[in-house]
Amino acid sequence: MMLLSRTPRRKYAFALQRLRVYAIRPSSTSASPNDHLSEPIVQDSFTRLSKFWIPTGGITATENEDAHSKLIRAGYLRQSHAGIFHMLPLGQKVQEKLERLIDKYMSQVGASKVALSSISSQSLWQQTNRLEGYGPELFRLTDRKDVPYLLAPTHEEEITTLVAKTIKSYKNLPLRLYQIGRKYRDEIRPRHGLLRSREFLMKDLYTFDYSVESALSTYEQVCAAYSRLFDELKLPYLVAEASSGDIGGDLSHEYHLPTSIGEDNVINCDSCNYVANEELAATRLSPSDTPPAESGDVLTAGVWRGVSKDRSTLINVWYPASYSDDDINTYAIKSILPELDSSLIDSTPFWSSAPSETRKGLRLVNIVDCRLGSPFTVALETNPNPKFLLPEGADLDLSIITSDYITTSTNGEPLNVLRIRDGDSCPRCESGKLKVQKAIELGHTFHLGTRYSEPLEAHVQVPKHLIEGGSSTAKPGSMVTVPMQMGCHGIGVSRIIGAVADHLADSKGLNWPRAIAPFEVVVIPGRGLDQDSVIVSEYLANSQASRTLDLLLDDRPESLPWKMRDADLIGYPVVVILGKGWSTDRLCEVQCRRLSSVSHVVLEELPMYINQLLTQL
Amino acid sequence: MMLLSRTPRRKYAFALQRLRVYAIRPSSTSASPNDHLSEPIVQDSFTRLSKFWIPTGGITATENEDAHSKLIRAGYLRQSHAGIFHMLPLGQKVQEKLERLIDKYMSQVGASKVALSSISSQSLWQQTNRLEGYGPELFRLTDRKDVPYLLAPTHEEEITTLVAKTIKSYKNLPLRLYQIGRKYRDEIRPRHGLLRSREFLMKDLYTFDYSVESALSTYEQVCAAYSRLFDELKLPYLVAEASSGDIGGDLSHEYHLPTSIGEDNVINCDSCNYVANEELAATRLSPSDTPPAESGDVLTAGVWRGVSKDRSTLINVWYPASYSDDDINTYAIKSILPELDSSLIDSTPFWSSAPSETRKGLRLVNIVDCRLGSPFTVALETNPNPKFLLPEGADLDLSIITSDYITTSTNGEPLNVLRIRDGDSCPRCESGKLKVQKAIELGHTFHLGTRYSEPLEAHVQVPKHLIEGGSSTAKPGSMVTVPMQMGCHGIGVSRIIGAVADHLADSKGLNWPRAIAPFEVVVIPGRGLDQDSVIVSEYLANSQASRTLDLLLDDRPESLPWKMRDADLIGYPVVVILGKGWSTDRLCEVQCRRLSSVSHVVLEELPMYINQLLTQL
Repeated sequence: MMLLSRTPRRKYAFALQRLRVYAIRPSSTSASPNDHLSEPIVQDSFTRLSKFWIPTGGITATENEDAHSKLIRAGYLRQSHAGIFHMLPLGQKVQEKLERLIDKYMSQVGASKVALSSISSQSLWQQTNRLEGYGPELFRLTDRKDVPYLLAPTHEEEITTLVAKTIKSYKNLPLRLYQIGRKYRDEIRPRHGLLRSREFLMKDLYTFDYSVESALSTYEQVCAAYSRLFDELKLPYLVAEASSGDIGGDLSHEYHLPTSIGEDNVINCDSCNYVANEELAATRLSPSDTPPAESGDVLTAGVWRGVSKDRSTLINVWYPASYSDDDINTYAIKSILPELDSSLIDSTPFWSSAPSETRKGLRLVNIVDCRLGSPFTVALETNPNPKFLLPEGADLDLSIITSDYITTSTNGEPLNVLRIRDGDSCPRCESGKLKVQKAIELGHTFHLGTRYSEPLEAHVQVPKHLIEGGSSTAKPGSMVTVPMQMGCHGIGVSRIIGAVADHLADSKGLNWPRAIAPFEVVVIPGRGLDQDSVIVSEYLANSQASRTLDLLLDDRPESLPWKMRDADLIGYPVVVILGKGWSTDRLCEVQCRRLSSVSHVVLEELPMYINQLLTQL
Repeated sequence: MMLLSRTPRRKYAFALQRLRVYAIRPSSTSASPNDHLSEPIVQDSFTRLSKFWIPTGGITATENEDAHSKLIRAGYLRQSHAGIFHMLPLGQKVQEKLERLIDKYMSQVGASKVALSSISSQSLWQQTNRLEGYGPELFRLTDRKDVPYLLAPTHEEEITTLVAKTIKSYKNLPLRLYQIGRKYRDEIRPRHGLLRSREFLMKDLYTFDYSVESALSTYEQVCAAYSRLFDELKLPYLVAEASSGDIGGDLSHEYHLPTSIGEDNVINCDSCNYVANEELAATRLSPSDTPPAESGDVLTAGVWRGVSKDRSTLINVWYPASYSDDDINTYAIKSILPELDSSLIDSTPFWSSAPSETRKGLRLVNIVDCRLGSPFTVALETNPNPKFLLPEGADLDLSIITSDYITTSTNGEPLNVLRIRDGDSCPRCESGKLKVQKAIELGHTFHLGTRYSEPLEAHVQVPKHLIEGGSSTAKPGSMVTVPMQMGCHGIGVSRIIGAVADHLADSKGLNWPRAIAPFEVVVIPGRGLDQDSVIVSEYLANSQASRTLDLLLDDRPESLPWKMRDADLIGYPVVVILGKGWSTDRLCEVQCRRLSSVSHVVLEELPMYINQLLTQL
């Protein structure tokens, strides 16, 4: 068959019609601006809300609405998936201001900014022995070649590997590198929005020194920069010495902000500056806590029962009967008996069901709160009554069980097994009463030492005499190879946004420190004053005293009361209203909810007046 | 056994010694700055290289080193895993400048910035039917509850869902939202560093309108902003009408930069402004291409053989013997015969091994380049000689195979099956010769229409008369629900860095447009001039004409020649050297490699002189 039919051609006609037509764009040195289709670009020196997307409205406030719901209702963010969020323009602006604030203080410690890959390799985490430790909190993935990767929750492995490949001499140290980037943690229970989410923004600074002494100097400089940074937010934060969890190392501090939804309990005195995390806080036992000498009656005591993780130790914690099991401070028990299984709600089944082969090795530990006094312990010891020592139904023979009695803390002080309660006495000052409040960690500093530099072989050559100090007899020329001394220093960027929102929110809405407010000032016109509001905004944007302010004009076609409620919800530090006062007397109404201030100010004084408010915020 | 032994206490002594000591940090309104440990903070108004980490050195240049290797050697970035990179401080600075540049032009089109989650859900991608299409290019993962997620390579699904939940009325449109964030694509062959990596930074703008007319106006505004943005880089970019691949929609443009390692071939004329992507470029056939009438001899032709994807069609492409198989333009063949399997290197095995049951339906298509003339086709048709029509060893019976002959393109023009080569005639102007150059796509604009708004139900209410135009008889009050008209507009942030590096690199090192240079000016002192270099830097940082420059002082303890070579490698736009001219005559040597300029300038004239250089870069 031979044919030159047109049919197959018509079939493909569409493809050829997609012929590409290009135009060369010469470089602008030779191009005229008229080449472009666009209208001339006139940029305001302030932001118009009509050009800035705030999807306010559509969501109804609930009773006792928390700060996270306010953030969503005000249009800062939206949840995309469980524990994962989209930042909308308002939230993005707060986040960018926080990033610039962090940049400023990182630059003060001579830290350079990097951006490490979010994807890290599982093999690297095996080298530092953290792959298993993180367990199901790691988001794991494989590529098309089945290479196992993970989404990094932190970057010690990556940065140590990078620096190990690059830095060989002590002359290149100290080195301080930081980044602000997304981190991933597959939380078992994401909650409170940005406070515990699965994708979140962190600032992480890593420091590298050649000696412990130099590393500790770095550590102090970072702590000082952190304090200046949190100072600029003008919020009453707390600095705590802290243990460093699974990051490693043994010197660390936490930076906390009190907030009702915090996950730590922080204890502070109403009189002196004593502050402690609940885990390790102490109280002064008052004379009324001293028991009468004769009170050896076990009926005057309550008992809390626990078991060790390996189920070989049964634990009785004895406390005054005026308290209850809920008052037991399990951290205090664990500090005496680290093998305590504190995850059990009810341990009595383990007392009665211990397998018979382990019964021979069973141990019984009685921990006695000092408020019960030594007569109580003596009574317990001299009359080991199963009715009290064992819970009902426990089928145990006390005579074959080793019994221990602990009546003082490990450093010999009177033993306090009870949680601190509001009104307990301060351990530091004479008259202070303690208060328990919830707080959330916003930042931390860790001295890591060689926790990562050793397994990842991040070594430098150092002259021996620099390591061993001036008194060394080492020859100046002789070099040694040492692992770098590292530090890591985090700030939870997303978390700060959530925590500050919670800390400053009131019934009307959110509030922000000026340093991270999405805008510092909003101008809201009443009906018919749109043109005047542009004039006022331009005046502020061009006055010497206010030209650097981040200024917003609410030019949306809504009513004045609606816009005022919206401004309260969003939480601009300063609100300028052009209302009746403006129409009659050319007075701007200036509101500042955080300072409970409302004033009427003439235009000429407006720049200075706003500045003076903002310096307090 | 009863004992109050001290042994168990000593065992746990360490735990209790970790008692936390907190200090309250009051807000800084009441705190004195002396509370802090730190030395006073004095910040220079320029950057000292001793405080900015550039890990130069340690890597030896290779012969014919490409721009990516220069980026690594100069200290802009490092590879962490295959196709995945860490940005070091120099690269991070370029990236941040590019981000600010993009922010500026996005603000000009009234776009608000958001930050969408990198983790997207697979179920969302199923709704738009893209989960399978992307196939192994998607990094997929599941969380601890086995919910299937992916790392987003683009965000149409997420943003359309977000907007669908939020926007209900045409009054909230047009809406323009963009972000600059990490994207993920598991490339089968990551290469050329930042040009084709697996984790990369993109700017993606999404636009929402209620009518096609309004969407096209948005589209034009975005194109104009893109042109202004690329103009500011002062590089000779190309704008091409383009097809939109799997993003959907039917109006799109690409923004290309010529570069030796580009993956597209772009054809342009040396005389007029004709430019086209190789896929669809045309050439004017010159009179010498017209064959003599008698040349019907099949021996004067070469033949390229292919098969269709389903192996049912065998394809002969006939071309003049002076060319070779390498000159075949497979895009041209595919435009005539879309079923061509263009991925085969050698198709002859499929000619001889077609399964016998399909042989009955086999079709043979002969495509004849116009240069061979119709006598050639006639000869082929009238004498279907298996020796020519079939490759050697093909066991086929021509008499039972349907044969077609195609001699013109689908729109009836003379058929050109050959790739354009340097020197071919321009199809648009009389005298121009075409040139083939490689280029890389840096940005694109797409009008998406309702490709995503329909499946994801992103609808708005619009008054009927606004949709149907002024001539409509619809009552003003009556509303209709329509899917939003969307656009998406990308810029490859990481890719621009790699492409610009390649475009401007020379044998000495990199070069940058001032708009995205890591620093605009570096000051390098010769031996003994350290103090003078600080004075010069301070002078520049404080002079009216140069105070806003991004200035770097190379205060590292290296030799002047070493630092000059390093500056050339890094590619600062302007280099100021304090050398012999300074010592003898107080003259600064000002080098600008891109402009091949070296001048000696007195300090007072330095700010203006540098500015004048930079306006050309």
